[in-house]
Amino acid sequence: ELRARLDRLHSADIAYVLEALPYPDRMIVWDLVKSERDGEILLEVSDSVRESLIQSMDREELVEAVETLDTDEIAELAPDLPTDVVEEVSQGLSHEERAQLRASMSFPEDSVGELMDFEAITVRHDYTLDMVLRELRTLEELPDHTDQVFVVDEQGALLGSLPLDRLLVNQPDVLVTDVMKRDVLTLQPLEEAGEAAQAFERYDLVSAPVVDPYNRIIGRVTVAEMLDVIREEGDSEALAKAGLREEEDLFSSVWDSARNRWPWLAVNLCTAFFASRVIGLFEGTIERVVALATLMPIVAGLAGNTGNQTMTLLVRSIALGQVNASNARRLLAKEFAIAGLNGAAWGTIAGLAAWLLYRASPQGWLIGLTMGLAIVLNLLVAALIAFAVPFTLERLGRDPAIGSSVLLTFSTDSMGFMIFLGLATLFFA
Amino acid sequence: ELRARLDRLHSADIAYVLEALPYPDRMIVWDLVKSERDGEILLEVSDSVRESLIQSMDREELVEAVETLDTDEIAELAPDLPTDVVEEVSQGLSHEERAQLRASMSFPEDSVGELMDFEAITVRHDYTLDMVLRELRTLEELPDHTDQVFVVDEQGALLGSLPLDRLLVNQPDVLVTDVMKRDVLTLQPLEEAGEAAQAFERYDLVSAPVVDPYNRIIGRVTVAEMLDVIREEGDSEALAKAGLREEEDLFSSVWDSARNRWPWLAVNLCTAFFASRVIGLFEGTIERVVALATLMPIVAGLAGNTGNQTMTLLVRSIALGQVNASNARRLLAKEFAIAGLNGAAWGTIAGLAAWLLYRASPQGWLIGLTMGLAIVLNLLVAALIAFAVPFTLERLGRDPAIGSSVLLTFSTDSMGFMIFLGLATLFFA
Ligand SMILES: [Mg+2]
Ligand SMILES: [Mg+2]
Ligand SMILES: [Mg+2]
Ligand SMILES: [Mg+2]
Ligand SMILES: [Mg+2]
Ligand SMILES: [Mg+2]
Ligand SMILES: [Mg+2]
Ligand SMILES: [Mg+2]
Ligand SMILES: [Mg+2]
Ligand SMILES: [Mg+2]
Ligand SMILES: [Mg+2]
Ligand SMILES: [Mg+2]
Ligand SMILES: [Mg+2]
Repeated sequence: ELRARLDRLHSADIAYVLEALPYPDRMIVWDLVKSERDGEILLEVSDSVRESLIQSMDREELVEAVETLDTDEIAELAPDLPTDVVEEVSQGLSHEERAQLRASMSFPEDSVGELMDFEAITVRHDYTLDMVLRELRTLEELPDHTDQVFVVDEQGALLGSLPLDRLLVNQPDVLVTDVMKRDVLTLQPLEEAGEAAQAFERYDLVSAPVVDPYNRIIGRVTVAEMLDVIREEGDSEALAKAGLREEEDLFSSVWDSARNRWPWLAVNLCTAFFASRVIGLFEGTIERVVALATLMPIVAGLAGNTGNQTMTLLVRSIALGQVNASNARRLLAKEFAIAGLNGAAWGTIAGLAAWLLYRASPQGWLIGLTMGLAIVLNLLVAALIAFAVPFTLERLGRDPAIGSSVLLTFSTDSMGFMIFLGLATLFFA
Repeated sequence: ELRARLDRLHSADIAYVLEALPYPDRMIVWDLVKSERDGEILLEVSDSVRESLIQSMDREELVEAVETLDTDEIAELAPDLPTDVVEEVSQGLSHEERAQLRASMSFPEDSVGELMDFEAITVRHDYTLDMVLRELRTLEELPDHTDQVFVVDEQGALLGSLPLDRLLVNQPDVLVTDVMKRDVLTLQPLEEAGEAAQAFERYDLVSAPVVDPYNRIIGRVTVAEMLDVIREEGDSEALAKAGLREEEDLFSSVWDSARNRWPWLAVNLCTAFFASRVIGLFEGTIERVVALATLMPIVAGLAGNTGNQTMTLLVRSIALGQVNASNARRLLAKEFAIAGLNGAAWGTIAGLAAWLLYRASPQGWLIGLTMGLAIVLNLLVAALIAFAVPFTLERLGRDPAIGSSVLLTFSTDSMGFMIFLGLATLFFA
C-alpha cells in the first residue's frame, strides 16, 4: 500500500521524503521505490542522502538506474558513483552521447557547461512555420522547458530563435527568418552559473542557448537549473557566514557534523586568543579601574555590528556589479560619514550610560568620556575594515562572503579593546 | 547619441543603469528615456530608486506612464504612486480591468495573489488541437511565459492543462481532453509566495494557475516572479541578520542610511549593557584575578559561534519543512551531543592555552580549569538557546531569521560571562 502511494508521488516528492527520514526508515522506503525511478530520484536528493542511497545499491542496480538518464544527468551523478559503474554506463552510450558525457564532466563546478543539457531543438532559417510544425509533430515529446527552437544557418551557426509563441500566432506559410528573434542572449560553457542566473532573472528567460566560439549551439540551459543556482547561492552564503563547509543532513552522524563545524571554531579560537592578548597588554590599567573590564565588550560589540551592516550591504552591491573603482571612494566617504554620525549618537548615549553607572566612583566622568571617544573611533575603524575586507577577498579571487565576518569581528574586537583600554591608560595615567 | 543607445537597451538594463548612477546623473538619464518605456522601467527598479524617479515626474507624466501597464503591474506600482494618479488611471480601465486592479491591490504582501497576472489562456476540453491552434493564431502574441493553456469545462472550472509541447507534437485532429494533463498544481491567491516558489523549484514549473474556491481560474503566476521571490528571500535574510530594515540605495543620503541602521544598534546597545552588568556582578573577582577579564570574551565568543552554526542549520531545516515535533527531540539530543564533543575538544585546548599563558601565576592551573569547564557548559547552553530561539519565533508567527542572532548573542554573552566568572568566584573564593 505504501508502495502504491510512492508510485503516485512525483520523484521530487520522494526525494523530499527520503531526506526527512532517519537512515533505517530511509532504506526501507528506498527499497520500495520502483527501480526505474531510482535514477531520477538520485538526481533530486541532497549530496549526503545521495551518498547513503548509492552505498546501499550494488553495481548492477546502479548501472540500471543510471542508464535511464540523459548524458548531462549522468555527468551530474558521476562524481558520486564508483568509477566502474560510470565506465560500464558509458560503454552503452552512442558515440555522440559519450562525447557529451565527457564534455559535461569536464566543465568546472558552478559553470554554465556543468548545468547545460544537450536537448536544444534547431531549425533552418529558410523553413516555413508549417515545416517547423510538421517536424515537431514527428517527435514523441519536446524537451522540458522548450520555449523556443533555435534557428541556424547551413553551417550550424546560431542566427536567432523562434519562440514557440511566434510559431503559434503566425500563419503557417510565413518563413522562420521573417518572424525569428535576432537578438538572442547566448551563454558560453565556461561562464559562471551565477552570472547566467542573473541574466535569467533580468531578462525573464526560460531557456538560453550555450554556444562554442564559432557561435554553434552545443547545449542549452533552462530556468529550472537557475532556480536551483539562486537558491544554492543564498543557502551557501548563509552557511559560509556561519562557518559551515556544507549543508548537513539532518540525521548525519554526530561525528560528521562535529567535523563539519570544526575548522571555523579553530579559526575563531585563534582570533579570540589574539584579541584576549590585546586585553592582556592592559592588565595593569584594568587592575586599577575594574569598570573598564565590564564596559569593553560594549565597545567591541557595537563596532562589530555597524561594521557587519556596512559589509553586508557592500558584499551585495559588489555581487550585483554596482560598485566600481570610480564610485568606491564616494561610497567609503559616505560610510565614514554614517559611522561618524552613528559614533556621535551612540557614543554619547553609551558614554552617558557609563557615567551614570559609575557616577559614584571618582573616575566616573572619565570612564564615560573614554567610552564615548572609543566608540566613535572604533566605528570609524569598523567602517574602514568593512570596506577593506570584501574588496581584498574579491581581489584575491575569493568569495567575499566566506570568512569575511571572522576577519571583521577579529578586527573590531582587537581594535576595540586596543582603543578603549589604550585611551583609558592615557587618561588614568 | 546616448538617447539612441538607451533606446536599444532592454528596460531591465536601463533600470540597472539608473540604480548605479548617483542622483543628478540618474535624473539626466531618466529624462532621456522615451516616455512610453517609463512604466516598465518603474516596475524594474528598486524601491528607493523608484521613489526618486516618481518624485521627479508630474501627475500627467505619471498617468501616461502607468496607463501602458497591465492591471497587475499597475497594482504593483500603486503603493508608490500619488492616490490621484491611481484614481485617474483606474478611470480609464474597463470594468473587468478595474475589478482586477482592485483584486490585485487587496492581496497581502508576499502572497500569490499579489504576484499573479490575469493573462491565463483557457480552452474548452471538447476542442480539437486544430481549433486551439486556430484560436491562438487570432492573437497578436501570447502572454510571456505561456508554456501551457488551461482547459476548462462549460462552467469555467479547471479540468487540466494543455502544455504547448503536447499541442505541438500531437496530430491536429486529436481532442484536447485526450492529451491534456490532468494533475495540475493549482495555487490559491492567499498562499504564501515563498511556498509557491518552493513548488516551482520542486516541480520545475514555468507557470501555474491560481484558482478560486470553485476551482475557476482567476490568474496565473510565472517562474519569472518566482526567481525574484527566491532572490529576495535570500537577500532579505542576509539583510535581516545584519539588522537592516531594507536594502539601501548605494547613493541614498547619509541620513536615510543612518536611520535604516539605528533600530538594530539600539537593540545591540541595550543587550550589550545587560551583558556588561553581568560582568559588573563579579568586579570583586576580576579585581583579584585580572586574567579573567582577558579570557572571558573567548568563552562568550566561542559559544556564540557554535550556537550560530546550530541555529543556521535549524532555521534552514525549518524553512524546508524538514523539522517537526516528532524529530525535534532527536535533533536536540544530537546537537547536545555535538556541543558536548565540541566543548570537550575546544574546552581542553582553550584551557591548556590559558594555563600556558598564566603558568607563571600561582592560579595558573585553576584559571585553565575554569576556562575549560566554562566552555563546555556554555556550549551546551548555546545549543539549547540556538534550538529555542527559532522555534519560539516561529511559534510566535515571526520570521525565525529576524532578530534570531541578537537573541542568541545576547544569551551566549550573558551566560558566558555568568558561567565563567561565577565558576571563578567559586574556585578562587
Ligand atoms: Mg529502489
Ligand atoms: Mg553539483
Ligand atoms: Mg543538469
Ligand atoms: Mg534534462
Ligand atoms: Mg508525434
Ligand atoms: Mg525578472
Ligand atoms: Mg523619461
Ligand atoms: Mg512589493
Ligand atoms: Mg505582478
Ligand atoms: Mg505581466
Ligand atoms: Mg496572428
Ligand atoms: Mg528543480
Ligand atoms: Mg517583474
